[in-house]
Amino acid sequence: MSVVTITTDFGTKDGYVGEVKGVLATRAPEAALVDVAHDVTPGDVRGAAWILGRIWSRFPVGTVHLAVVDPGVGGARTPVAVRVAERWFVGPDNGLLTFVSRAFSVEEARRIDLAIGGSPPSDTFHGRDVFAPAAAHLSAGMDPRRIGPEVEGGQIVELPLPRPARQGDSLHGHVLHVDHFGNLITNLPNDDLPPSPRVMISGVTVPTLSRSYGAVGRGELLASLGSGGTLEIAVRDGSASERLGVDRDEEVEVRPSPGASA
Amino acid sequence: MSVVTITTDFGTKDGYVGEVKGVLATRAPEAALVDVAHDVTPGDVRGAAWILGRIWSRFPVGTVHLAVVDPGVGGARTPVAVRVAERWFVGPDNGLLTFVSRAFSVEEARRIDLAIGGSPPSDTFHGRDVFAPAAAHLSAGMDPRRIGPEVEGGQIVELPLPRPARQGDSLHGHVLHVDHFGNLITNLPNDDLPPSPRVMISGVTVPTLSRSYGAVGRGELLASLGSGGTLEIAVRDGSASERLGVDRDEEVEVRPSPGASA
Amino acid sequence: MSVVTITTDFGTKDGYVGEVKGVLATRAPEAALVDVAHDVTPGDVRGAAWILGRIWSRFPVGTVHLAVVDPGVGGARTPVAVRVAERWFVGPDNGLLTFVSRAFSVEEARRIDLAIGGSPPSDTFHGRDVFAPAAAHLSAGMDPRRIGPEVEGGQIVELPLPRPARQGDSLHGHVLHVDHFGNLITNLPNDDLPPSPRVMISGVTVPTLSRSYGAVGRGELLASLGSGGTLEIAVRDGSASERLGVDRDEEVEVRPSPGASA
Repeated sequence: MSVVTITTDFGTKDGYVGEVKGVLATRAPEAALVDVAHDVTPGDVRGAAWILGRIWSRFPVGTVHLAVVDPGVGGARTPVAVRVAERWFVGPDNGLLTFVSRAFSVEEARRIDLAIGGSPPSDTFHGRDVFAPAAAHLSAGMDPRRIGPEVEGGQIVELPLPRPARQGDSLHGHVLHVDHFGNLITNLPNDDLPPSPRVMISGVTVPTLSRSYGAVGRGELLASLGSGGTLEIAVRDGSASERLGVDRDEEVEVRPSPGASA
Repeated sequence: MSVVTITTDFGTKDGYVGEVKGVLATRAPEAALVDVAHDVTPGDVRGAAWILGRIWSRFPVGTVHLAVVDPGVGGARTPVAVRVAERWFVGPDNGLLTFVSRAFSVEEARRIDLAIGGSPPSDTFHGRDVFAPAAAHLSAGMDPRRIGPEVEGGQIVELPLPRPARQGDSLHGHVLHVDHFGNLITNLPNDDLPPSPRVMISGVTVPTLSRSYGAVGRGELLASLGSGGTLEIAVRDGSASERLGVDRDEEVEVRPSPGASA
Repeated sequence: MSVVTITTDFGTKDGYVGEVKGVLATRAPEAALVDVAHDVTPGDVRGAAWILGRIWSRFPVGTVHLAVVDPGVGGARTPVAVRVAERWFVGPDNGLLTFVSRAFSVEEARRIDLAIGGSPPSDTFHGRDVFAPAAAHLSAGMDPRRIGPEVEGGQIVELPLPRPARQGDSLHGHVLHVDHFGNLITNLPNDDLPPSPRVMISGVTVPTLSRSYGAVGRGELLASLGSGGTLEIAVRDGSASERLGVDRDEEVEVRPSPGASA
């Protein structure tokens, strides 16, 4: 059984997710439909890109990842199907694949024919009329060439995200994502941190890394080697975002602890 | 594999959706369970009816649509299983099928025997004790006559929704639904609109139809041919409901643009 | 097909639920993944325990219930796989099984080997790295002994919940859970109530039991035989929690109605 994952900003009070699933259930009846997240902030392409970056490689080869956060629906952005590491990604070419295509090179990228659903699509719901039919097509193992022509040079849109920088002893980075718990996920790779890092954010210094939340008291700040591969800042049993008044894109600096030998 | 879709106002912080799914997984182990929406406003039968109206025909023939928004649970309303266009709908007969039964005629309607679960049901959770067993029964391909007796004349409850009216050149309608994005979905069919419609709502005039959100600037109002078949009013990258201070049932008027030839 | 249910406090705006499902889809491709609830209040072990207590026995024998509400992740609490009534429960041993293990005795309890995922787990995401691999292992029918060693004496953590008490004619209990609708679910068993109970909570008396919400007017309080087996207090078409200003752990007292013969 093949898997189709679904990531949207459609919420769960309307029928939109249901319409997309109906198209998938009709056109790819053997696919297992897996909800990833539907409460992405409306129009937050970057938030959805972060999600895709976290989940895609956890699913087996052959999975189709359908992602529809599409504030430009019906406009100039290109609907695409992109193959990376033997998984397919289907959605608008607006940066949703930024993290995926940084991790692995694009093997194939096709512009989706707007008539793939069998009739002219609506102008405002390509999730149902264009992307779901394309995802079903691929999930059912049909010829990808029938999706549409190859994108020239395989070039897809990448969001201009901040990248970490090193200045002498210190690493400078940013908060990439604030999660449901209020944890701050940075772009500083765990592997690049000094052995005893001191983390500075928003005028506050976290003096050391903690292995787990239990290493600090309730309500206290901690920095940890994040499960996504980058440094995270959290508050035990609380929200680091609220506690520090910090949102996405806040700067973070890491230095070796004074006296620590690198 | 047959599909059972699930639409409720149970939310996703309690176990109620899980209890319903447990009954389905036990009694119809071959069914694929598909979440449609669980964040319908508590008791909002009309909101759920709108969802069913959007999704039902997207799913394949043979699908069972289980819908439980049931403020009168345990009271006088009838639990029903209704067949429309070769799909089954299972839930309380309180108007949930208003849009479905307007679109297609009812082929069969049965009052669900309250003992269908094998024991007397609770008074307050027919979703688990009455509707899920009935949905499982139908999904497993068992005889519909064992659900219970036919409803006399096949009559099911229809909500008294406003209908569009024409006065000379102008069309008068209403907002039927406000979605997650704050878009206003009206009851004015796309096909009935004049070629160059001017849309008036809440003292504001939208001078023309836009093909897509990209046709206007950020934060600007637009009217578009909605993906559900009726006129919609939206704000690009924003909420039309908030911007106009408009909720469900607000009046909408459409006239041909001055100077436009009909 | 075997079922794996998933209950978390991960929310539905991030990719965490997706990562867990990816691991399950990869390692137990035949399992049907069933979302129970992801909007448990962050860190609310007791709320998740209540959910598990409601749902577990509704699912068929052989089901694996994966539950991750884990404020102590990476710390001292033990990751466990516990077998009760031929279902497996996988998660942190922090009280999540309180209601399950009260209902049925534990048949087998194993401490999960942290390397079950094939490599050292992250410190902060055992849901993905420890619990999902263990759930997949069990769902795929593999030898439970390979999960890890048996927990001594089969002892697992139980939350110290209030228990009902009888004083003469009256029953004293507490609110165990406030649900999505604002209904107050108490710990007073339906079967222990007097024939004509008078329910007192927060200085208010509900004079009688109602069979259904329809038995009282809109906005009125009612007490009913709850679908989970214990007394519930609700407001028709409203929230009893808001109306009474009452939260979890509020005291409830039940007496026979004056003049009623017990």
